[in-house]
Amino acid sequence: MIRAGIVGGTGYTGVELLRLLANHPNVEIAAITSRTEAGAAVSELFPNLRGHLELCFTEPEPTRLADECDVVFFATPHGVAMDMVPALLAQNTRVIDLSADFRLSDPVVWERWYGRPHAAPDLLAEAVYGLPEINRETIAQARLVACPGCYPTAVQLGFLPLLEQQLVDPGQLIADAKSGASGAGRKAALGTLLCEASENFKAYGVSGHRHLPEIIQGLHQASQSPVGLTFVPHLTPMIRGIHATLYAQLQRETDLQAVYEQRYATAPFVDVLPPGSHPETRSVRGSNMCRLAVHRPSAGNTVIVLSVTDNLVKGASGQAVQNMNLMFGQEETCGLTHIAVIP
Amino acid sequence: MIRAGIVGGTGYTGVELLRLLANHPNVEIAAITSRTEAGAAVSELFPNLRGHLELCFTEPEPTRLADECDVVFFATPHGVAMDMVPALLAQNTRVIDLSADFRLSDPVVWERWYGRPHAAPDLLAEAVYGLPEINRETIAQARLVACPGCYPTAVQLGFLPLLEQQLVDPGQLIADAKSGASGAGRKAALGTLLCEASENFKAYGVSGHRHLPEIIQGLHQASQSPVGLTFVPHLTPMIRGIHATLYAQLQRETDLQAVYEQRYATAPFVDVLPPGSHPETRSVRGSNMCRLAVHRPSAGNTVIVLSVTDNLVKGASGQAVQNMNLMFGQEETCGLTHIAVIP
Amino acid sequence: MIRAGIVGGTGYTGVELLRLLANHPNVEIAAITSRTEAGAAVSELFPNLRGHLELCFTEPEPTRLADECDVVFFATPHGVAMDMVPALLAQNTRVIDLSADFRLSDPVVWERWYGRPHAAPDLLAEAVYGLPEINRETIAQARLVACPGCYPTAVQLGFLPLLEQQLVDPGQLIADAKSGASGAGRKAALGTLLCEASENFKAYGVSGHRHLPEIIQGLHQASQSPVGLTFVPHLTPMIRGIHATLYAQLQRETDLQAVYEQRYATAPFVDVLPPGSHPETRSVRGSNMCRLAVHRPSAGNTVIVLSVTDNLVKGASGQAVQNMNLMFGQEETCGLTHIAVIP
Amino acid sequence: MIRAGIVGGTGYTGVELLRLLANHPNVEIAAITSRTEAGAAVSELFPNLRGHLELCFTEPEPTRLADECDVVFFATPHGVAMDMVPALLAQNTRVIDLSADFRLSDPVVWERWYGRPHAAPDLLAEAVYGLPEINRETIAQARLVACPGCYPTAVQLGFLPLLEQQLVDPGQLIADAKSGASGAGRKAALGTLLCEASENFKAYGVSGHRHLPEIIQGLHQASQSPVGLTFVPHLTPMIRGIHATLYAQLQRETDLQAVYEQRYATAPFVDVLPPGSHPETRSVRGSNMCRLAVHRPSAGNTVIVLSVTDNLVKGASGQAVQNMNLMFGQEETCGLTHIAVIP
Repeated sequence: MIRAGIVGGTGYTGVELLRLLANHPNVEIAAITSRTEAGAAVSELFPNLRGHLELCFTEPEPTRLADECDVVFFATPHGVAMDMVPALLAQNTRVIDLSADFRLSDPVVWERWYGRPHAAPDLLAEAVYGLPEINRETIAQARLVACPGCYPTAVQLGFLPLLEQQLVDPGQLIADAKSGASGAGRKAALGTLLCEASENFKAYGVSGHRHLPEIIQGLHQASQSPVGLTFVPHLTPMIRGIHATLYAQLQRETDLQAVYEQRYATAPFVDVLPPGSHPETRSVRGSNMCRLAVHRPSAGNTVIVLSVTDNLVKGASGQAVQNMNLMFGQEETCGLTHIAVIP
Repeated sequence: MIRAGIVGGTGYTGVELLRLLANHPNVEIAAITSRTEAGAAVSELFPNLRGHLELCFTEPEPTRLADECDVVFFATPHGVAMDMVPALLAQNTRVIDLSADFRLSDPVVWERWYGRPHAAPDLLAEAVYGLPEINRETIAQARLVACPGCYPTAVQLGFLPLLEQQLVDPGQLIADAKSGASGAGRKAALGTLLCEASENFKAYGVSGHRHLPEIIQGLHQASQSPVGLTFVPHLTPMIRGIHATLYAQLQRETDLQAVYEQRYATAPFVDVLPPGSHPETRSVRGSNMCRLAVHRPSAGNTVIVLSVTDNLVKGASGQAVQNMNLMFGQEETCGLTHIAVIP
Repeated sequence: MIRAGIVGGTGYTGVELLRLLANHPNVEIAAITSRTEAGAAVSELFPNLRGHLELCFTEPEPTRLADECDVVFFATPHGVAMDMVPALLAQNTRVIDLSADFRLSDPVVWERWYGRPHAAPDLLAEAVYGLPEINRETIAQARLVACPGCYPTAVQLGFLPLLEQQLVDPGQLIADAKSGASGAGRKAALGTLLCEASENFKAYGVSGHRHLPEIIQGLHQASQSPVGLTFVPHLTPMIRGIHATLYAQLQRETDLQAVYEQRYATAPFVDVLPPGSHPETRSVRGSNMCRLAVHRPSAGNTVIVLSVTDNLVKGASGQAVQNMNLMFGQEETCGLTHIAVIP
Repeated sequence: MIRAGIVGGTGYTGVELLRLLANHPNVEIAAITSRTEAGAAVSELFPNLRGHLELCFTEPEPTRLADECDVVFFATPHGVAMDMVPALLAQNTRVIDLSADFRLSDPVVWERWYGRPHAAPDLLAEAVYGLPEINRETIAQARLVACPGCYPTAVQLGFLPLLEQQLVDPGQLIADAKSGASGAGRKAALGTLLCEASENFKAYGVSGHRHLPEIIQGLHQASQSPVGLTFVPHLTPMIRGIHATLYAQLQRETDLQAVYEQRYATAPFVDVLPPGSHPETRSVRGSNMCRLAVHRPSAGNTVIVLSVTDNLVKGASGQAVQNMNLMFGQEETCGLTHIAVIP
């Protein structure tokens, strides 16, 4: 059994990790921490876990966590993991970070977008970017995995086949992305009250969103050339789901459908839909799948890719478990075969 | 492996059966029928099943179904099962009916509420009412199980402990029940359009709802005396979930919390919450649990029971699988350990 | 023109007052206060008001308010109005309080439910309870009107005809009430986040809610005898709307439909629906109407009344404007003829 | 008083016309037709109109309509108006068509997109495209006005200032548009059931949507050069609202904010928000406003315009009333000063 710990278990990615790990056949949840809830039973905060998990929140103490855990997940806001990770690694506990701390390889870029110096810049080089569809082998060897953000997962999986094969102009990419409100996390805030966010739709962060440099970094790597990306996120009146509508300009002829199907033929969590499809976010709700469709209206130059994920699963906690499976020699799909809940 | 068939697989209880059975360790889905979709792949209609199920809809033919299946589930509107069940039983295939056809033991009452004579009145006596919390042993022996309706499940589980012990006046029961829109089924209808049913709340069927005689039949059996029940269902702007708020008049003193905890001590799918709790429907969304809380405000005579279920799981397809487990000697919880999806 | 001021204009009842008063033909909004937003333009906070209102929030100063206003509305949490009202009345400015400060006539009861002594107990006797359907004449003469709570409005309008004529047992009343999330106000809180409150339904406050003594006070007055009321509020996954399902035990025969129609024949904002109706909350969304239907299933002893309002209009700001109209000799319906927005 | 008739009053644009016209100071609703509901009271179908409108549906008869009405609105599916309009015009009754019948000036294009020959091709040249922000003067003189579609309204108002001044490349336009479910109309259909469309987001019609030729026609006229437009509509889990996110490539420097403010300085229903704004659909819910914001991230070449409307008001019935006001010499804003309902 893999002994797993979770730091910061009171947010949405935390409870989702609990849902996935509690039913994982080869995992024992050894510890879950929360400064604010230390001492409370997990099932008090999350009654859906009653009968599934008899654990209490504890204070986050790196030494004890390292003793009790083979792997520690960070489901914390940015800035927490980078302070604790060195101690865990030093005791040979592996780390899967769901926060933004180790996603950007350049500490200067990190500081520009997060407004403070990075606390463990030397680890940025070692951290492996946890998108299994590009880094499956390196993830398996990694001590420290940085799970991609929710938008970056949906956007990169959609653009990768086009960029890796230089099929489109990398300088003219547009990602119009829509997310459910759970992307904003479980924190009391006016903007995501039901009365503010339901029956409403709006863009936000048009002038610049922290997921932009992360996406650009990944797309740059894929295309091996500078990337010009316009990224507009939108808040959608639903709980879970990301829908990325991607636009690119074709620069040579190809069979787009075949390109996508081949690229993801061996990826268990990327599903390329038949031509003409429109994936729905609910078709992946509660599951670790990303479903894609590729369109080229009127046989023109504009390629449109539709990419959907559950932002809390493939966009966060599910992908983290997928990474854990790879790191610990499990089947990649182990504990992740949930079927999306419809309706 | 239990070979299972589903008649009428295109509705919400049908797709929910597929979600549950596709991941059940000891079940093989042998057939799924639909007159309108015969020939189509199940995953075309329900893309959440892509990669989980390689089955096509077929025409419903009792003989072939009986050959291929150890058990057949009916996820059909009322009036379908009663025509096909005799042929299946005759070939020793067992039947679990999710429709209303075999829920009422009296054919006269059935005819009054469903507007036509019952087609297999002789089977009404044999059919076992599939509420495991009262009929666990008889279900295990049954050839034909009639799964309770969604409202009747939530209401009966809430009232049973009070009535079985004659703690309340059986002549003065009120069940104010609220259901998500999936209770209306997957059929094109004005009243359950998003534009009609979201941002809206209303009662319906106040003058009489088909679940009323079913609830009364069950409560009568429990209390061994005539039952006076006022039942008001409401349409709630959400997809899944039933919340029954039950009112009864106490007629002798007792420790209500203890009564409930003891009554359901061995029921794996009924969870009695601590005193003072308010169960949320989302705490059971996608899971087979019923969560209950019992209140007695100001130590007065009125007992209030709050009972929540997912109408498509414990209120329909999950309970059907629970019955199947009992009928085929499986662990009662086998394939039913899903944790509710929160948020 | 009536010069109106609003204290506490940043909450949902505040912005709703602005929506109603900005288009009222005989009102000029003279001042709107907010400690936290003083200096900011109202339309910055509420972009729906852009082009309709050129006002900035100011600090709440009673003297200046009294100078500038003929009437001041309090759209504040409880405990604010009772400190400021005496100064306003002293300068002959009339007050319409939407908070709970002057709803209960007994200061002892107020203190028990609100956890502190009342700051202006002498004014409790003078304050008129602002339910025009019972106090139309006294409201017209009042200096200080206490607007009813949202639940009390829907529940009292539903029960009044039965109790005033002693048609039902006043000791056995049940009010099962459902409210949209805006009833919780515009404040950052976990429980009313979209991710917590949508796709979810739950009861709350079963052991006792602050609207209970207010409802009992009103029903007692109507029935002239002690009232036994069980009140269970529920949080419903929508923004606006209250649906009260009321249960009472008939104690003498009568034509219930006629009783209701006669009782409200001259009430412009209470609409008794035809027999057999099920009022929908959306049929009053954004409007000041209360729609009622009365049922007696199977001609039994239980009467069921269905009562719907928009909690922010007839349950708060609309009723406040209705009171203002009466106090200042306007048509009762002036500025309140909005048609509910459907869909 | 303008005597107005409505053909096809049972859909969402029909009931919205009723809401707006019933409170219009200078309009009398003279007739409302519906083949299916002829004889029924309007308020039976739409209880929000109880007390506001004492009209019954009648059969649609052109001669009687022409006798009784100065203007007739068509709130019908496409293909109805083109058969009846000639008779109405012949009797000097003016027509405002909310359907698609007269939006495209070229009958060949119309036939290609709507799959049948146009029944009144000669009237296509006379029909005035009812977007007051470009055709205010011609609308005032028109006998026949074709109201724009909901998407075309939001998209054109967003792009016009850029194209009219040749600021962007007209061959590289992208419109990523999101609509609430009411855009699909009031008809029983699986896809817009609450259980299918809520908690879900998807694109549709990527290969071609009927609003595409209409938008291209309008943008072509504005830019005076061929237009290359990629248009992707999405179904959003809410009732009302359109959010168009528009992308264009700048081809010369300018002060974008000033361009937009000047373009719409005299348009009462287009509101250009301050720089850096993100308009919300709810800020126009129930109102006739279009709110716009223009962005240019990182001072790059890509211009992003955010445009929101209520699809049933400015995108349909409100714009129709605005056109009527212009045609009958009323103030453009008469009867259209509703403030959006927030929350």
